[in-house]
Amino acid sequence: MPEREEKAFLVSGVTIPVVELLSELQEKRQRTVDRTELRQGILARVYDRIDSDFPKHLERCRAFLRQKSVSATGDGIRETAQQVKSFIEEIGGNAAFWGNPAFPIVWGRVKGESDRTLIIYGMYDVQPADEPNWMSPPFEAAIHTLPHIGECVIARGAYNSKGVLCGLFNSLKTLVETDKIPVNLIFVIEGEEEVGSLQIEEFIRTHRDELKADAAADFDFSQDSRGRVRMHLGLKGIVYMDLICRGGKKGGPAETSLHGADSAWLSSPAWRLVHALSSLTDSEENIIIRGFCDNVAPPSAQDMESLEKLKTSFDEKVFLKEMRGICFKCNRQGIDLLVKGLYSPIININGFRTGYDGPGTKTLLPRKATAKVDIRFGPKMEPEEVVEKFKAHLFSTGFDDIEVRVRDSYTWSKTDVSESVVQDMLAAYRSLDVEPEVWPIATWTAPYFVFSRILGLPVVGGGLGHGGRAHAANEYMTVSGLRDFEKFVVTFLHLAAASQKGVAATPNGS
Amino acid sequence: MPEREEKAFLVSGVTIPVVELLSELQEKRQRTVDRTELRQGILARVYDRIDSDFPKHLERCRAFLRQKSVSATGDGIRETAQQVKSFIEEIGGNAAFWGNPAFPIVWGRVKGESDRTLIIYGMYDVQPADEPNWMSPPFEAAIHTLPHIGECVIARGAYNSKGVLCGLFNSLKTLVETDKIPVNLIFVIEGEEEVGSLQIEEFIRTHRDELKADAAADFDFSQDSRGRVRMHLGLKGIVYMDLICRGGKKGGPAETSLHGADSAWLSSPAWRLVHALSSLTDSEENIIIRGFCDNVAPPSAQDMESLEKLKTSFDEKVFLKEMRGICFKCNRQGIDLLVKGLYSPIININGFRTGYDGPGTKTLLPRKATAKVDIRFGPKMEPEEVVEKFKAHLFSTGFDDIEVRVRDSYTWSKTDVSESVVQDMLAAYRSLDVEPEVWPIATWTAPYFVFSRILGLPVVGGGLGHGGRAHAANEYMTVSGLRDFEKFVVTFLHLAAASQKGVAATPNGS
Repeated sequence: MPEREEKAFLVSGVTIPVVELLSELQEKRQRTVDRTELRQGILARVYDRIDSDFPKHLERCRAFLRQKSVSATGDGIRETAQQVKSFIEEIGGNAAFWGNPAFPIVWGRVKGESDRTLIIYGMYDVQPADEPNWMSPPFEAAIHTLPHIGECVIARGAYNSKGVLCGLFNSLKTLVETDKIPVNLIFVIEGEEEVGSLQIEEFIRTHRDELKADAAADFDFSQDSRGRVRMHLGLKGIVYMDLICRGGKKGGPAETSLHGADSAWLSSPAWRLVHALSSLTDSEENIIIRGFCDNVAPPSAQDMESLEKLKTSFDEKVFLKEMRGICFKCNRQGIDLLVKGLYSPIININGFRTGYDGPGTKTLLPRKATAKVDIRFGPKMEPEEVVEKFKAHLFSTGFDDIEVRVRDSYTWSKTDVSESVVQDMLAAYRSLDVEPEVWPIATWTAPYFVFSRILGLPVVGGGLGHGGRAHAANEYMTVSGLRDFEKFVVTFLHLAAASQKGVAATPNGS
Repeated sequence: MPEREEKAFLVSGVTIPVVELLSELQEKRQRTVDRTELRQGILARVYDRIDSDFPKHLERCRAFLRQKSVSATGDGIRETAQQVKSFIEEIGGNAAFWGNPAFPIVWGRVKGESDRTLIIYGMYDVQPADEPNWMSPPFEAAIHTLPHIGECVIARGAYNSKGVLCGLFNSLKTLVETDKIPVNLIFVIEGEEEVGSLQIEEFIRTHRDELKADAAADFDFSQDSRGRVRMHLGLKGIVYMDLICRGGKKGGPAETSLHGADSAWLSSPAWRLVHALSSLTDSEENIIIRGFCDNVAPPSAQDMESLEKLKTSFDEKVFLKEMRGICFKCNRQGIDLLVKGLYSPIININGFRTGYDGPGTKTLLPRKATAKVDIRFGPKMEPEEVVEKFKAHLFSTGFDDIEVRVRDSYTWSKTDVSESVVQDMLAAYRSLDVEPEVWPIATWTAPYFVFSRILGLPVVGGGLGHGGRAHAANEYMTVSGLRDFEKFVVTFLHLAAASQKGVAATPNGS
């Protein structure tokens, strides 16, 4: 667990006074970014070069996707790390490996034209690709036309996230070839994101001095299938746990599973785990652990302002349809729905397994039941508190024999909308004719806290382009989205170069 | 579901007046069976022949075990049915196949010396043998010496139940070769016991006229590892159900599983099934469905008498140890424990599966959760009532979207201790120096109701010999137990031949 940093809390929307109204700030920003000027000016040459080189860029991306890098097995990890190091060196940067030599963090830096410095966070590992039903082999990176989506590269990692990573280096290479990289960049590219980011916290803590920067950025294909961008200013924290209930002293088969008829005499770990889980939430999945939500911060004034704005564009029906749902879990609408979804801690059952689940019937009193649950929480809860309250609940309800194995945990992250880097990203979208929805916090998680809470930096994530089916068969990215993404990156870096730290920055300085 | 038969209820301990005290009856029986006389008389020659032929018997049994007969896959079923038919014909009987030609019921009859007729129920199919860790191939029927058990045949079906079935025909063959078969036998040997006895009820209903008999018997290696026999006068009924909870109208992902973060918005079939299950029982697994136990019959006076006797030999610690448990699920002792275990209906979770259960972490909002539960119940509940009350509970608690698929169900069976055939079996044990524990009902189930409830016959199950690890790797039967079993069968048949129908029968008639 990271130590709590005083500095870290300064980036949250609560402790910094809102010096200007959000709407005024955005108006100011929009005035200073003249899209036509941007397009006809310094970026026009870079855009043209991206267009003319795009066939090569696409092929480079496909070649990178053909290189396996499955962190679960280690397959191709070293080779891919070497490739990432070459990407950095190719644009004139210095790069090195850090940490476990089998899964190195590739880190390095390249000098830019301004005195602004961005940390680029990324990952080069992918999930296993053992799912059935791939339309072409997952490491072939074939091009297919998907209905309603268009021409796509089908590959493990196309969307999450090697397509993105190669697109980033395509952009940087183009900048170097046509002009200059406008900001100093520090790369922190890990090869263990899919197995829990095992080294990143230690890396960040031991390299504070080398990681002095103005902001951190994580690129992504952030457009949904309709081209809309959702930009998130924060992420929830997570505690991911295995719960294991065994027979033994509290009853149940102590050695092996038994015939189901023996449940007349011995208690069942399956029943115990069902009852223990059931005691955590009510029938609407609200957490009913006593005192669990005592420290949950309500939305800040600034967050509420974001939600008021978001409400005007947020289409509940489309949102639901994108999740392939028929109704929301709570009977709320508009801002109430957003507040409930974004700010209430939740417990999800990712998996539950016990006994026999094959075809037909088999009577069995299982000796063991296991569940995988995660708890997601926003400001101001912390992982230690979550684990402590969870265990205290099991203890006080008589389920203290259930083993709680915390597999993964990190805390929430939040960045103020007034940060320059946020405004630079918004401006980059707008200069490419996209108006994002700004969400004050996301329901998903990522280890952004290492930048926001340990280094005290604003963190921003985004990018044009669309992809989908992460962790699933036929993961894809659109071909046209890769090109848009590359243009987005160069635009954003140019805007970031012109920024000054602080809420009143403009792309030309001020 | 079988129709309820008036006749059927006559066999329960409740509706027949207890004409004699159990203890008096047993005393009378013991007086009339002179063990020495039996051994020196008509059976001595048969015992000798079993001893001298035993090497051949054992080899025949091993050969029969080498013939696969896996009903789940159909592998070897036809060949084994043919073999069973030959067994019947070899002893001078007539035999035929009935029903699904791929899984025929082998039925037939052989004339005996008396006018008594027994139906012999049996099965020739076995479970799959795909478990790892067999010490020798499951269809090799190799002989190994097991610690604390002795010389054993290791094979799928050795214990459950092809070892038993071949031992029975070894006995009958010996009887034919040395003397005569003392009673008329009707064989009903099915090849689908392990997949739910799919045809037996129809067979019984359509062959009532051909199945006129005095009793039904099911043979088994009934001794535990210490040589003790538990003899059961009844079996519980069972309803085995799959419960399936899907996303959709009641919330949750309607098409595919989603990222776990989406649980902020959509409800979870995993949570729904956990809450639905949890509403069925309290923390001690007592069923809390309203009115569920209203019709549960308490132990009859005769049952209580059996329990009083059983209490004197029932060793709770050893019983617990045999189940490899550390404590019982309820805090009771002696008769209270027996009554609770034997007469309370129970719900067992045989299996529960949802989402991801592999190594490490994967965040997932599953679209589906499934559980396999069974409900076991004794007199006077019936399967229809169980299913109806179960569904009504789900409906009234808002879980009516959970699909309830009844896979298997049959009702309880009970035979009065005073039935001749029960007394004959007790006498057979005693003549071989074994005093069984008499349990008024068992917690396990089998389709005995087709005989007791449809044909109105007393049903008895038992046999000497020991085996174990049914449905598991290294299933075994002891070599010496097979020999004891064969002697038991001939003894029992001779005693049954001498019986008369009715509560006051003695082996020599009266």
